Amino acid sequence: MRIAVLGTGGVGATLASAFVASGHEVRMGSRTAGNEKAVAWVAATGDGASEGTFADAAAWGELVVNATGGLVSVDALAAAGAENLSGKVVLDVSNPLDFSDGFPPQVVQPDGRSLGELLQATFPDAHVVKTLNTMNSDVMVGPRALPGTHAVFVAGDSTDAKAVAADLLRGFGWQSDEIIDVGGITAARGLELYLPLWLSLMGSFGSPAFNVSIVRA
Amino acid sequence: MRIAVLGTGGVGATLASAFVASGHEVRMGSRTAGNEKAVAWVAATGDGASEGTFADAAAWGELVVNATGGLVSVDALAAAGAENLSGKVVLDVSNPLDFSDGFPPQVVQPDGRSLGELLQATFPDAHVVKTLNTMNSDVMVGPRALPGTHAVFVAGDSTDAKAVAADLLRGFGWQSDEIIDVGGITAARGLELYLPLWLSLMGSFGSPAFNVSIVRA
Repeated sequence: MRIAVLGTGGVGATLASAFVASGHEVRMGSRTAGNEKAVAWVAATGDGASEGTFADAAAWGELVVNATGGLVSVDALAAAGAENLSGKVVLDVSNPLDFSDGFPPQVVQPDGRSLGELLQATFPDAHVVKTLNTMNSDVMVGPRALPGTHAVFVAGDSTDAKAVAADLLRGFGWQSDEIIDVGGITAARGLELYLPLWLSLMGSFGSPAFNVSIVRA
Repeated sequence: MRIAVLGTGGVGATLASAFVASGHEVRMGSRTAGNEKAVAWVAATGDGASEGTFADAAAWGELVVNATGGLVSVDALAAAGAENLSGKVVLDVSNPLDFSDGFPPQVVQPDGRSLGELLQATFPDAHVVKTLNTMNSDVMVGPRALPGTHAVFVAGDSTDAKAVAADLLRGFGWQSDEIIDVGGITAARGLELYLPLWLSLMGSFGSPAFNVSIVRA
């Protein structure tokens, strides 16, 4: 599949590399073509890797991943172009965290609405799936590096889009019974609001190499 | 130990009964003495159970549990009396959820501060420990009804108070390695903000008989 990864940070690069390793073609999108980090990622990755503007990448991709900073994601996807997202699955892995008052950051959810919902409302012809935002990027693409079973959540209004997301997750090594559908895109609220607990746990453990598992009766 | 449980709802009654079953004496506190639910709980429980006003219960108790609704907890503890909380461990198991706009509810954290922090700031001579708010009350007092190991979190500024909380948790059947210290009372933010995810999971599973476990590398 042709996958556009919007965002050149650590999460975007880790996901982009893992998609290429899974046999997909990836174009990394950024605000301007020739972004230094994107060019370096293409050079390091080789076959299957390319880069361009947000709009170049989104127009080319069959699926789009939002790995931009959560506070700028609406702007980034607007730059990508609503027409380039239309009818496509958009995996939103971002977190709308405001660190301007220091640690712990605030989760920014105006009027209590999540970023996932805001993206879906702003780009109604896209199929937004919130997923993978609840863990470190190494865990996202390497779940088997942790012992036992643990959980990755998907939230979105389209069942078909969540099935596409689940296929990609299995490509990273996630087992089907570890992929937990938490409901429509409204459930992105809980997935984003989980981040402060994740940050507290990271502080307690001194490491991001952990994840939650769900234990049921 | 003499334990004051403030609040006559399902969580308060479940905790109060479990404390009595563990060999503690419990006084259930409510806004007025002779509260119908409190009287019924005393009658059903027998030895070790009593009831009274918030202030009666808090003055009598060596430890105080806040099991009132999160939106009225500051008022309830003010009615209990700062002098009756002074020097005591206050276990805050409440969640500041506003259901006035329907489901999912909003987590009420004015200026981004948790209820746990607000209680600690309002009653600076109490030793507030946020715990147990991340699960159904049957799981709180009966962790072994779920398979395997899972997690209960404690957050608070006093290490001694967290140790007292851990002793009480062990009395319910929690294992020491399941009790995860997430830091100072500021970490109550994450514990309270987890609730929307818990509610989504409950909706997906159709049951509250679940909990999170932490998987570490």
